[in-house]
Amino acid sequence: MKKIATLTSGGDAPGMNAAVRAIIRGSKHFGIEVTAVRHGYKGLIDGSFENLQHTDVSGIIQRGGTILKSARSDEFRTEEGRKRAGDQLRKEGVEALIVIGGDGTFRGATLLSEEQGINTIGIPATIDNDLIGTDETIGYDTALNTAMEAIDKIRDTADAHERLFFIEVMGRDAGFIALETGIASGAEMIVLPEYLTSLSEIRESLNKVLKARKRSSLVVIAEGDQTGGAVKISEALKKDFEQYDMKVAILGHVQRGGNPTARDRVLATRLGFEAVQAIDQGKSDVMVGIINNNVTFTPLKDTFGKIKAINNDLVALAKILR
Amino acid sequence: MKKIATLTSGGDAPGMNAAVRAIIRGSKHFGIEVTAVRHGYKGLIDGSFENLQHTDVSGIIQRGGTILKSARSDEFRTEEGRKRAGDQLRKEGVEALIVIGGDGTFRGATLLSEEQGINTIGIPATIDNDLIGTDETIGYDTALNTAMEAIDKIRDTADAHERLFFIEVMGRDAGFIALETGIASGAEMIVLPEYLTSLSEIRESLNKVLKARKRSSLVVIAEGDQTGGAVKISEALKKDFEQYDMKVAILGHVQRGGNPTARDRVLATRLGFEAVQAIDQGKSDVMVGIINNNVTFTPLKDTFGKIKAINNDLVALAKILR
Amino acid sequence: MKKIATLTSGGDAPGMNAAVRAIIRGSKHFGIEVTAVRHGYKGLIDGSFENLQHTDVSGIIQRGGTILKSARSDEFRTEEGRKRAGDQLRKEGVEALIVIGGDGTFRGATLLSEEQGINTIGIPATIDNDLIGTDETIGYDTALNTAMEAIDKIRDTADAHERLFFIEVMGRDAGFIALETGIASGAEMIVLPEYLTSLSEIRESLNKVLKARKRSSLVVIAEGDQTGGAVKISEALKKDFEQYDMKVAILGHVQRGGNPTARDRVLATRLGFEAVQAIDQGKSDVMVGIINNNVTFTPLKDTFGKIKAINNDLVALAKILR
Amino acid sequence: MKKIATLTSGGDAPGMNAAVRAIIRGSKHFGIEVTAVRHGYKGLIDGSFENLQHTDVSGIIQRGGTILKSARSDEFRTEEGRKRAGDQLRKEGVEALIVIGGDGTFRGATLLSEEQGINTIGIPATIDNDLIGTDETIGYDTALNTAMEAIDKIRDTADAHERLFFIEVMGRDAGFIALETGIASGAEMIVLPEYLTSLSEIRESLNKVLKARKRSSLVVIAEGDQTGGAVKISEALKKDFEQYDMKVAILGHVQRGGNPTARDRVLATRLGFEAVQAIDQGKSDVMVGIINNNVTFTPLKDTFGKIKAINNDLVALAKILR
Repeated sequence: MKKIATLTSGGDAPGMNAAVRAIIRGSKHFGIEVTAVRHGYKGLIDGSFENLQHTDVSGIIQRGGTILKSARSDEFRTEEGRKRAGDQLRKEGVEALIVIGGDGTFRGATLLSEEQGINTIGIPATIDNDLIGTDETIGYDTALNTAMEAIDKIRDTADAHERLFFIEVMGRDAGFIALETGIASGAEMIVLPEYLTSLSEIRESLNKVLKARKRSSLVVIAEGDQTGGAVKISEALKKDFEQYDMKVAILGHVQRGGNPTARDRVLATRLGFEAVQAIDQGKSDVMVGIINNNVTFTPLKDTFGKIKAINNDLVALAKILR
Repeated sequence: MKKIATLTSGGDAPGMNAAVRAIIRGSKHFGIEVTAVRHGYKGLIDGSFENLQHTDVSGIIQRGGTILKSARSDEFRTEEGRKRAGDQLRKEGVEALIVIGGDGTFRGATLLSEEQGINTIGIPATIDNDLIGTDETIGYDTALNTAMEAIDKIRDTADAHERLFFIEVMGRDAGFIALETGIASGAEMIVLPEYLTSLSEIRESLNKVLKARKRSSLVVIAEGDQTGGAVKISEALKKDFEQYDMKVAILGHVQRGGNPTARDRVLATRLGFEAVQAIDQGKSDVMVGIINNNVTFTPLKDTFGKIKAINNDLVALAKILR
Repeated sequence: MKKIATLTSGGDAPGMNAAVRAIIRGSKHFGIEVTAVRHGYKGLIDGSFENLQHTDVSGIIQRGGTILKSARSDEFRTEEGRKRAGDQLRKEGVEALIVIGGDGTFRGATLLSEEQGINTIGIPATIDNDLIGTDETIGYDTALNTAMEAIDKIRDTADAHERLFFIEVMGRDAGFIALETGIASGAEMIVLPEYLTSLSEIRESLNKVLKARKRSSLVVIAEGDQTGGAVKISEALKKDFEQYDMKVAILGHVQRGGNPTARDRVLATRLGFEAVQAIDQGKSDVMVGIINNNVTFTPLKDTFGKIKAINNDLVALAKILR
Repeated sequence: MKKIATLTSGGDAPGMNAAVRAIIRGSKHFGIEVTAVRHGYKGLIDGSFENLQHTDVSGIIQRGGTILKSARSDEFRTEEGRKRAGDQLRKEGVEALIVIGGDGTFRGATLLSEEQGINTIGIPATIDNDLIGTDETIGYDTALNTAMEAIDKIRDTADAHERLFFIEVMGRDAGFIALETGIASGAEMIVLPEYLTSLSEIRESLNKVLKARKRSSLVVIAEGDQTGGAVKISEALKKDFEQYDMKVAILGHVQRGGNPTARDRVLATRLGFEAVQAIDQGKSDVMVGIINNNVTFTPLKDTFGKIKAINNDLVALAKILR
């Protein structure tokens, strides 16, 4: 009987547990034995394997975080560390490894595969949605809604005071969260890492919006924006908008947690199952994704390091409707 | 300057307001005048027109329901009624009408177009997701999450008592909500209108699941299921599962309301804008939708009356993982 | 070292887990050994004891349901059954039993104490809030918010259509949930078990409200209402309000589940700790409660079987403001 | 017919709208005319009065923020400003003013009363719960739940990574939010403004907790804490806990917004009505509150400037159970 292992790594994303559940339960369907690794690559090096049964993954589909835990591992960044990880997998009799995570996770998995000859299958899970080879990553839809609900609350208080709010959402390299939450919350301005937005542009835009007698103004800013994030931008504009009560809100880590949305649970369930099926069918070193509603397989090494295009129509639309 | 009108009709769906906002604000972009009709087709016959300005649609993107109201209109079902509606539109100088709703709404719109020569553009908005010509309808994603969160709560109490729950979700003709919420909540069984599921199949499936020592069992049933819905099924099975504490939960109208999700707000915003753009570009009698992330136009008369296929892979997957 | 046991019984209520956590962790503080009983009185008879440690109750304070499970036990309703339960407790060396539940649970506990000489301490946990000896029971605040949020969603759709909704909330003998959710959701009428509300009164009230040109009307009805609940009332009034689109919504079991509110978690934490402290101080056969912000102890046998008064000022207020 | 006015001022709090609704609708009951003031004291000076009718306050009970708006007014801080406000009220024929807000609002109201002879009635509304004369202020319960739900999400991600999180909640002078959300979220440590907590105490406590092998550690800190808030504390401890992945989360303005909880809506509804009734009964210059479930009246000038005691039993309990 074929044996595989699975782990979660990097920043946690809501829906990781749903993927783990699908892998554990899906493996039985294919007659594959599966072992879970605790604490990501760190646990892989330490040999923290644990067999999980069908009922061990009951009641986890609705939970945020990851029951397999995640951890940083400086050792895995070294070739020697990856050698030890490979040894552990061989010792355990594991033929393939399913890694659930983002770009950092896939970089590591690619090296593990190249150096140690371990077949690694990737499942894209990161709230940032910045991986090539899938329309959406696991956790993205939940993060969108978490951020949007927080901005809705801020809109309540902004409206009450007719205030100017600078709201920073997650997205170090990608503006997906900022763009979609900005549109969904009717933000008066959206600042993305994909575009260089100068202070004078922001100033001019805000002036236009404020002249149009809006009740309040929300500027949604991706943390990775090139002008420097919500704190820097608000400080730089303080003098220009002295008559306004300016406030900054950095949404931060709440965006990573929470129960996954229906969409993330279904996506994670599908991808978890497809990853096992891919192994059963002999595929190797690919990331499983969904593009245009179809399951796709992209060489794992091609899924990161490139910029995933945001929807420019949405960017334009946000400007028109504000 | 071209003048158009818009209305919402049929069952309300979260996101309708976001579409209205995009139409009102998007019209300005194209130099089109827009008037809103209150109370759907009933208001159209009565001539309840109202000009809405940019700020009139501030603060509505996050609200469920529809600020334009919806209503039944028996009169509009008659040719004479539609004649009066056409007269009102001509009197008002309206060249095109954007209708936001589901299959009943589009049937009416098609007749209005055919008989009265009014260009009608459809925006798909129904929680049931049963329209041809778009991957998702406005309101569907919100309804999914509302139903799923309710089922999560029922799971809490089902687990506490190790109970057997029959949960009926909306979907008179289509099992989209039942299928996706069933998967997302880890339901032990899903009963859909698209398949004839006999009582003996349900009995057998439940026996298997209960033998596998699950903590509790949830059966998610679409209201339109051919065996007769949650009440009938649970009563028919009472004798077979006497040792279990059987309960029925009919989620009902809560599934229509609530603040729209990020996905529904963005979808509604895009479709609202695209509907106006379609008119600006001279398109007529089409429904605007999004298929595989691309904006599409389907003749309005082809969007209803046919069965939209559910994802059979998901149906199979649900059975494998339970 | 003194040894105690704890169990949850009857309908589950959000916050039960927080109470269990406080009992397990609080016991250590008093140098008391604690064992948990699975499946309520049924498990007690079966001797399903399990020692839970400090970390076993990590991460449960935020969960609905009960990790100790609850179950019906016909056997415990017999004197022989209670004799077996007493034997199990004596065999296990348990000196006192903390029961978390509602009136049925406390009835059983009182008999267990009287017949078997077991010191039983009650912690009030029921969403119905119908126990004497505490201002609020665990789970009540969460159920209020769950029901209210559902009614808010129904309001969205009721407003969209200008409909007449009959909404049934939990409360077989007590109208607490109906009264407070009715006020909180701005219901046009509230029907409680504590008052005999005739159909003609309901008809008259509704006529008044509808004449005043309300956008929509919601009637919130406790399931235990003497006229017969939402279905019966709506059917009896159908002829009188033919021109309205009448709908019924029965909120049902969703009201029992869900993550507890802050108030329920804090209340449960306090009561769990105080129950252990009561045992440490030699108290016996009491229910611990909070009245006017002070911890109180009421003889367990006096906590049920009587009607807990609802706030008549609130009843009057609801009528004035609708 | 007697005429009164009402306004909201200071930081907005969820439930303010429910109070406004109860004032508008309750006034009719007493045959009192009521006018609403927009933008707090600023609007009072400007004479921004507006008569609101019964249906104008439909559909606002469930909304956060304040439909009357709030605003800063430097002018009202001067005697001349208050003179102008008094003049406006006299010109409008207003005999009494109901102010909804916190300590700053009540300070202003007290001066207005003393200098201008305007009868001012206070309704306590601030998320901080720091007013004397009521057990709870409007908005407090909602803020508790908002903060707690955010911390629950952070717990998900903290657990996944076994991290050390420093979470700052609102409360400049009072630790109510920090104390209750800390208990409700099972925080490993709570830092309050009411106690001087030295860095060495925090260090020692954390060491104890971390040794006990907790899965993750959350420190909840009130913004007004004397050691300097989450950022300062985390930086000062960085060296001592180098092996841990330390993160800071400042919840910020989201805590002010959102739909009010059932408890806040009922409280606000009661207080709004009681404020009008107090005027009808000839009471003057008092704040209406609820202590031990009874309506109380406290001289407005005695409600602020003093420290409202937190529950020391809860502080002790939090330490025992962590």
